[in-house]
Amino acid sequence: MSTVDNGVNVQALLDAREALKGAPEAAQFTWRASSRWEKGVHSTTTIEKFFGLGQEQSHKTRAEFSADHPEVFAAEDNGITPIEYLLVGLASCLTAGVASVAQNRGIQLRSVSSTVEGSHDIRGILGVDGDVRNGFNDIKVTFNIDADASKEDIQALVAQSQKRSAVFDALTNPTDVTVEVA
Amino acid sequence: MSTVDNGVNVQALLDAREALKGAPEAAQFTWRASSRWEKGVHSTTTIEKFFGLGQEQSHKTRAEFSADHPEVFAAEDNGITPIEYLLVGLASCLTAGVASVAQNRGIQLRSVSSTVEGSHDIRGILGVDGDVRNGFNDIKVTFNIDADASKEDIQALVAQSQKRSAVFDALTNPTDVTVEVA
Repeated sequence: MSTVDNGVNVQALLDAREALKGAPEAAQFTWRASSRWEKGVHSTTTIEKFFGLGQEQSHKTRAEFSADHPEVFAAEDNGITPIEYLLVGLASCLTAGVASVAQNRGIQLRSVSSTVEGSHDIRGILGVDGDVRNGFNDIKVTFNIDADASKEDIQALVAQSQKRSAVFDALTNPTDVTVEVA
Repeated sequence: MSTVDNGVNVQALLDAREALKGAPEAAQFTWRASSRWEKGVHSTTTIEKFFGLGQEQSHKTRAEFSADHPEVFAAEDNGITPIEYLLVGLASCLTAGVASVAQNRGIQLRSVSSTVEGSHDIRGILGVDGDVRNGFNDIKVTFNIDADASKEDIQALVAQSQKRSAVFDALTNPTDVTVEVA
């Protein structure tokens, strides 16, 4: 029995994997956000409920997130920019994956940190040049990991985390987004 | 002169557009996040500095974001899930766009709210079925807008916001993401 403890209940995840093999409908989740405009480009987005395992679910607490533009865009900087939220999602998803895979492989983590950099040519969103895309040009993630494992095993951890990451997939592959007015 | 005031300094954005036509290097931004693993799948991501207009920039305040998995995933729910951060980014980006375009078109907004729903088959991330993707299957955004404008003009506002949205582009089109171990 492994004495490795990264705080991830891998057995529960393995059990869920087995259970969902025979119950694909329970695996259908819907994540939800509600947003309201404050003023200018400042908005507040709330996350609390979601649907999954066949029923309504709720986070323990309701979370609110402010977004705005910085002062260099002539705004009030009441929160990070919308596009920066994508970097928060990417960093946290890959980090969760590293911890989970390490637990499953019996690797004790001591520390995991990462930096994420997204290159963005803002001529796209400003409409300066129609050939410049609106989103990131590219994103680079760099991990620093201190663990009871070889450099090769650590690289393999990160590679497996990428392979199973929801956010890595959402950013590297297209998703159909429908926008409607009620 | 328009008396419409949505709190967006459109003139500054139009001036920036003109200025950046002749200075493409100033339009190259780098957005950054730093993340550290806490325990289990819980992490904290910090956003403060970025690069743009040819120099280091900083938000007014340093912002921290917790991410975790919910209790139904045998985790402690110390924050929203990584993938939910993408919905925060999408809602706030489209809302900022609606406010900016409305200002530019002389449309007074009274209220703007939206709900975002992301469908996610978690068999992908759990490794139940290799044919199921890790990310969202699709995302649906629904706006409720009260403004001094016709239904058609409101729909056109939302359409233009989508057309210029950094996050809409980042989710609907692929981005190259490189992940390295230092």
